Amino acid sequence: MTNSAQRHRVVVIGGGFGGLAAIQKLKGADVDITVIDRRNHHLFQPLLYQVATTALSPSEIAWPIRMLVKHRPEVTTLLGNVTGIDKTAQLVELEDGGRVPYDSLIIATGARHAYFGHDDWEPFAPGLKTLEDATAMRRRLLLAFEAAERETDPDKRKALLTFAIIGAGPTGVELAGAVIELARTSLKHEFRSIKPEEARVVLIEAGPRVLANFRENLSAYAKSALEKLGVEVMLGQPVTEVTADTVRFDGQELRANTIIWAAGVLASPAAKWLGAEADRAGRIKVEADLTVPGSPNIFAIGDTVTVLAPNGKPVPGIGDAAKQGGKYAASVIRARLAGQAVGPFRYKHLGDIATVGKSAALIDFGWLQLTGWIGWWTWGLAHIYFLIGLKNRISVAISWLWIYLSGHRSARLITWGEAGSGKK
Amino acid sequence: MTNSAQRHRVVVIGGGFGGLAAIQKLKGADVDITVIDRRNHHLFQPLLYQVATTALSPSEIAWPIRMLVKHRPEVTTLLGNVTGIDKTAQLVELEDGGRVPYDSLIIATGARHAYFGHDDWEPFAPGLKTLEDATAMRRRLLLAFEAAERETDPDKRKALLTFAIIGAGPTGVELAGAVIELARTSLKHEFRSIKPEEARVVLIEAGPRVLANFRENLSAYAKSALEKLGVEVMLGQPVTEVTADTVRFDGQELRANTIIWAAGVLASPAAKWLGAEADRAGRIKVEADLTVPGSPNIFAIGDTVTVLAPNGKPVPGIGDAAKQGGKYAASVIRARLAGQAVGPFRYKHLGDIATVGKSAALIDFGWLQLTGWIGWWTWGLAHIYFLIGLKNRISVAISWLWIYLSGHRSARLITWGEAGSGKK
Repeated sequence: MTNSAQRHRVVVIGGGFGGLAAIQKLKGADVDITVIDRRNHHLFQPLLYQVATTALSPSEIAWPIRMLVKHRPEVTTLLGNVTGIDKTAQLVELEDGGRVPYDSLIIATGARHAYFGHDDWEPFAPGLKTLEDATAMRRRLLLAFEAAERETDPDKRKALLTFAIIGAGPTGVELAGAVIELARTSLKHEFRSIKPEEARVVLIEAGPRVLANFRENLSAYAKSALEKLGVEVMLGQPVTEVTADTVRFDGQELRANTIIWAAGVLASPAAKWLGAEADRAGRIKVEADLTVPGSPNIFAIGDTVTVLAPNGKPVPGIGDAAKQGGKYAASVIRARLAGQAVGPFRYKHLGDIATVGKSAALIDFGWLQLTGWIGWWTWGLAHIYFLIGLKNRISVAISWLWIYLSGHRSARLITWGEAGSGKK
Repeated sequence: MTNSAQRHRVVVIGGGFGGLAAIQKLKGADVDITVIDRRNHHLFQPLLYQVATTALSPSEIAWPIRMLVKHRPEVTTLLGNVTGIDKTAQLVELEDGGRVPYDSLIIATGARHAYFGHDDWEPFAPGLKTLEDATAMRRRLLLAFEAAERETDPDKRKALLTFAIIGAGPTGVELAGAVIELARTSLKHEFRSIKPEEARVVLIEAGPRVLANFRENLSAYAKSALEKLGVEVMLGQPVTEVTADTVRFDGQELRANTIIWAAGVLASPAAKWLGAEADRAGRIKVEADLTVPGSPNIFAIGDTVTVLAPNGKPVPGIGDAAKQGGKYAASVIRARLAGQAVGPFRYKHLGDIATVGKSAALIDFGWLQLTGWIGWWTWGLAHIYFLIGLKNRISVAISWLWIYLSGHRSARLITWGEAGSGKK
């Protein structure tokens, strides 16, 4: 091994699916790696809606990044907020003035939800990207039932028991199924003035179908599964206004005290750091080898970029695409160090997967489609498999089995931001 | 059963150990019960320090109160903040203007930590009473190591890796043991610039020994167990000043970026609501039957009162004393409804129990003292037994077994208050 000061320095920004896959694929390479994230944990985002709806606890789907790379002495983990990139000096700039030098850089900074120019809607219709988003949403959901129990005005009570979810992609569909099950199963018999099972869950979608990225027959299946659970699905309804207790669309007006945003994403500000060209959602337009145009040593992957798959369609913004991008970027770095060449990134779509409540799921592997309880068990086992660590797999398996058998959700806590909540 | 409008109305304020025990003991009585709490959950406070030190997750030690009384249709749960009591009209007054009528009232509102006239120390030396306190403390502890990893000034780094705990009662002792194990076991090998196992944990106590409520030989054992783990124990040192990074005592000055307060408690404001006489810690001086002087239908129990045990000593502020008080108050209410009399409250001390790290504990049943690993296993099994629900028992047992076998703590998350943290 050469002197570590002379080794090739790889900096990875972001410890999500893409960043971790890159680090994994660089194992054994003659490089020093620094991973920078503004959070101390990797988050298993596909299950975040289950934290928001009280089925799982934050620590069941999040792990300290530095623990995940503990046995890789060549990997250094830094908790820090990136504010810019100096391409000439090859430095990543941190908010606290820190500068981290790189030879190769992998940007895997993901995306956040977006309001298409209506940022003023955010306080009324929060989205779901972080653990804090999830515990805040959990609090909102549970407080609505608590307030309804004490409300005597029937109209206000009805609005408190109406939950509007805007956007019927996977997050919106999964949230809708989970919220109605929370109301109809877990909270049943616990209130004295209200019947939580009479809560309305309304899923509002601008497009013509739910789960637009799935095949039409699976979209139709998902819609009917949602309706069977009791969710009201409204399609072709672009939302025109959101206020504290009202959603307006197409002349209609829905009074709902709890409004959830599941409609759009905006990439991280990486394009700005680099002065790179981006699409309307802020995603960097990368080359076919996932490098940033003009910067062959800077890779960008996952939700923060836009790139075409071999079939000519855009690579979707899902965890597996980020993983494939991370592995590819790592393999290019390894090949260059060995003086070899690598062909362009070729995204391989493994399938689409979504769940509706606790007994239906849809899986489309292309060559195989699964729905109903077979789909649900496959979905559950696949997600348990992809969780990190045996302890978490056992823990989530028990939590799910418990809900499945008893209906009791284990994380029904109303907690507050620690500072200034006045609710201690 | 008589018409519910005519039944005797019992209102319980507080869903802690005392309040829940009262409700339990009232099962089958001809009463309607309303339990009011400002939080939606019952909290198993003896394990709160384990949430603060990343061993357990909030949902493993807290349960929705309304779920716990789900199968008792005569019990109504209200989420509400009590602001006063109208003794003449027999009404509990809530912050939002709500009024809850009672025939008998049980006040079980507990205590919070206190700073003996130094409230300005609170931001620098937070205490531990709520789940939010615990997740905030967890964040402080973990961020200290993260900041130390990036700090280049050796003095500042040393202060970042110094943890001062003020007060060597059970909470202080248990926190000190858990913090040093976090540093020496769980975080080992995860940092590149610092060695977390070199962290200093200093336990500062004004009195002459740790765990002053235990017998002297057990106090001495606890001190030596702490020192064996590496905790520095400083006795007879009343703290004179706390600032953001310094603790002063007896002319000495300790630089520590993380300071934890485990030194004092202040009762809830129940004495003020009632205009009742209280001691210096705000505890109501109740009659021998736990009623408030002059109000024979108002009981006050647990940490919010002061009362003498049959041995002439004050009843200690522990969970079991609150439970005994709650059961007693319920039995008085039942006896009165039956036209019977009940003797005064007789507190029975079952024992003292505390733990030092993951392999030593002290238990004093009076007739039997246990220490070392036998004590530890007894402590662990007893706490698992007292947790509510099979799911939580399994979950906590797995979490502890995992830590015991692997040293990995499962809830090492840095999370922020949702609003205005700027860290999403």
